[in-house]
Amino acid sequence: MKLSQLFTKTLKEAPADEEAVNAKLLIRGGFVFKNSAGVYSFLPLGWRVLTKIANIIREEMNAIGGQELLMSTLVEKKYMEPTGRWNLDVSYKAIPQIDLDSYIQNSKFKIQDSFVLGWSHEEVLTAIATKYINSYKDLPFSAYQIQTKFRHEPRAKSGLLRGREFMMKDLYSFHTTQEDLDNFYKKAAEAYHKIFERCGLKAVYTKAAGGVFTDKFTHEFQVIADVGEDTIYVCDKCEYAENKEITKLKDGDNCSECGSGKIEAKKSIEVGNIFDQGTKYSEALGLEFADDNGNKKPVIMGAYGIGLGRVMATAVEVYNDEKGIIWPENIAPFRINLIVLDGKNKEAEEIYKELGADNVLYDDREDKTPGEKFADADLIGCPIRLVVSNKTLEKENVELKKRNKKEMKLIKIKEVFKEL
Amino acid sequence: MKLSQLFTKTLKEAPADEEAVNAKLLIRGGFVFKNSAGVYSFLPLGWRVLTKIANIIREEMNAIGGQELLMSTLVEKKYMEPTGRWNLDVSYKAIPQIDLDSYIQNSKFKIQDSFVLGWSHEEVLTAIATKYINSYKDLPFSAYQIQTKFRHEPRAKSGLLRGREFMMKDLYSFHTTQEDLDNFYKKAAEAYHKIFERCGLKAVYTKAAGGVFTDKFTHEFQVIADVGEDTIYVCDKCEYAENKEITKLKDGDNCSECGSGKIEAKKSIEVGNIFDQGTKYSEALGLEFADDNGNKKPVIMGAYGIGLGRVMATAVEVYNDEKGIIWPENIAPFRINLIVLDGKNKEAEEIYKELGADNVLYDDREDKTPGEKFADADLIGCPIRLVVSNKTLEKENVELKKRNKKEMKLIKIKEVFKEL
Repeated sequence: MKLSQLFTKTLKEAPADEEAVNAKLLIRGGFVFKNSAGVYSFLPLGWRVLTKIANIIREEMNAIGGQELLMSTLVEKKYMEPTGRWNLDVSYKAIPQIDLDSYIQNSKFKIQDSFVLGWSHEEVLTAIATKYINSYKDLPFSAYQIQTKFRHEPRAKSGLLRGREFMMKDLYSFHTTQEDLDNFYKKAAEAYHKIFERCGLKAVYTKAAGGVFTDKFTHEFQVIADVGEDTIYVCDKCEYAENKEITKLKDGDNCSECGSGKIEAKKSIEVGNIFDQGTKYSEALGLEFADDNGNKKPVIMGAYGIGLGRVMATAVEVYNDEKGIIWPENIAPFRINLIVLDGKNKEAEEIYKELGADNVLYDDREDKTPGEKFADADLIGCPIRLVVSNKTLEKENVELKKRNKKEMKLIKIKEVFKEL
Repeated sequence: MKLSQLFTKTLKEAPADEEAVNAKLLIRGGFVFKNSAGVYSFLPLGWRVLTKIANIIREEMNAIGGQELLMSTLVEKKYMEPTGRWNLDVSYKAIPQIDLDSYIQNSKFKIQDSFVLGWSHEEVLTAIATKYINSYKDLPFSAYQIQTKFRHEPRAKSGLLRGREFMMKDLYSFHTTQEDLDNFYKKAAEAYHKIFERCGLKAVYTKAAGGVFTDKFTHEFQVIADVGEDTIYVCDKCEYAENKEITKLKDGDNCSECGSGKIEAKKSIEVGNIFDQGTKYSEALGLEFADDNGNKKPVIMGAYGIGLGRVMATAVEVYNDEKGIIWPENIAPFRINLIVLDGKNKEAEEIYKELGADNVLYDDREDKTPGEKFADADLIGCPIRLVVSNKTLEKENVELKKRNKKEMKLIKIKEVFKEL
């Protein structure tokens, strides 16, 4: 895409009330706009990053047999009441304006007309499954969605790490036996490792407490980062890890898992989690299957979440310097930032055309100095910077610099396509 | 995809309270699940259709320079109050549960914590644009999103034609002059015609009233269908059309546009609309640009909407028979429904593999009769049905039938790939 066409610009300053590095850099780079505390819009550059993360997740979820769907955001009482999750503090309720007006006029409020704004969809998918699952022959299956979720966060100060509105991938799996769930749980954990690796993040598989979702232990995928709200105790050798909330491990302990490593306490960001939910939701909502003797049993379920904006924000927290963001290759808004100096020339136009508008952010702006263009390239953080100028063209060269390296090198124009 | 893996099944009956043909067929086919009145979940088959519609829209919006983004659903008072749209009857408000609890306990209600659930995003994008647009050099631009919207519909009885929650593409354009807006308006109208045509729908460009969005005339894209809630007066020759709400035309009038056609009244479904919004939003939210003399002027705006679920539902309303849906080729969940009879065989497996899991819904179920498989194929409505059975295999044939035709023909297996 041509930078002269992009309607956003880089900004000198982020909003004064924004504390988190991820939000400051993403706002300054033109990736997101802060609507309200914990509420962000994804601008074209940020939407590109989010779409790339979504597509990586999609591919890996499809690869383990996940069937994509999209459940409703508006969730009626009849779904949430059986599991006791209708009135949790985490939720927003959607109330028609006309009911609010009637409250204002009569101090009466038709609360029965409200919906909870979906913050997790176990109940809805379990209710859907009751229409289709009758026998052990209909199982196992798994289904997922990538959807905007809503949670009331009293303190939304971590930028995109903890939002009131955020995009989440939630997959749910349905099984006849604990063994079958355990096998799928492992497959899902492997898929998660692939997802985070493809997004450029190293995530530690961490034993954790169940929170509001389940009483059993769960597993989190934690990226080590000083800004993290979590603390994990992790072995420096085998990477066995437990969340501080449940562990008896201490800093400096010997690791009893591998027998040779040392346990270290680390601040970390949770980017994903997986839950064995047992029969909590299937029992509450009546999701049963007939086994091969015709006996009715509740379906055994698992749930698997990833926050897409949080993956994006974590990448920014982990990969940045004083000049800006340093995007991992697979989730960069564009792979290449092509800069033309000294006015447009046919060589730059040709490189742009050849490498493609989908791969290249082409800084063709005529009213910017070289210094401004370089600063914007560093702030936006595409992995590769190519500069075409009168000076490089003298010897038919282009200057190539990687965002995460100091060195530049000159390459022949005709070798650009081979090199990239 | 293998039908034996798909977790949904076709259903004999739609919910008793569902009146609309689109919802009945989409529910029976396993495309959607009805959560509540006017609230639907998109199951895997339905999500595939919706994704195809989304991608067609995306391609055509990108082709006219639209920049994709995703704005927040939660919209604060500060955005909506300047335009007088904060408390409209159409809106749902999002209220934290803890504030509702405080109401229940003290009969006091902190309404200042609420958000409107975005039902149209002129205000938000205008506010975003104020950060980036300063001069005439920054204009024109257009940006769009594909997003779930929320509107309080007192009567939600038309299935997916009129939902409380629905997916919409909303594009907004920003201009320095009326002439520039008019040119873009025409370009957008052409793109809309392409979109509906690619979706298999014939949409009539219809002059209409502005509704809550604007005082000016607008244009609607109306698909003629008896189930439609709208009435348009349309020339049988040149297709000039006006919405009943604004027209002085009568059934049987001579068309004054082309001079030779007759005006007919037709029921129709609005699948898209475009608005000249003038400076209403830019003035209210302070979006100005400096012209080449340095004078500040309000930006001139347009808005362009398409309801994706409504396009899907309209296709079902227009293309169906007593057996089920007849999907237009480009938005069918799969192009081909491959049915194997008399147990699996290597020929069917090969056809499936060769044509690809993304193009073929492969009915490999072993516990279904031929009659059940044919009935499901007709209900689900993929454009092409291929049947492989012992009988066809005797002469190395496959039976091919189009969903919208009566005839079947036998083709040689080795010619299937050429034929399709």
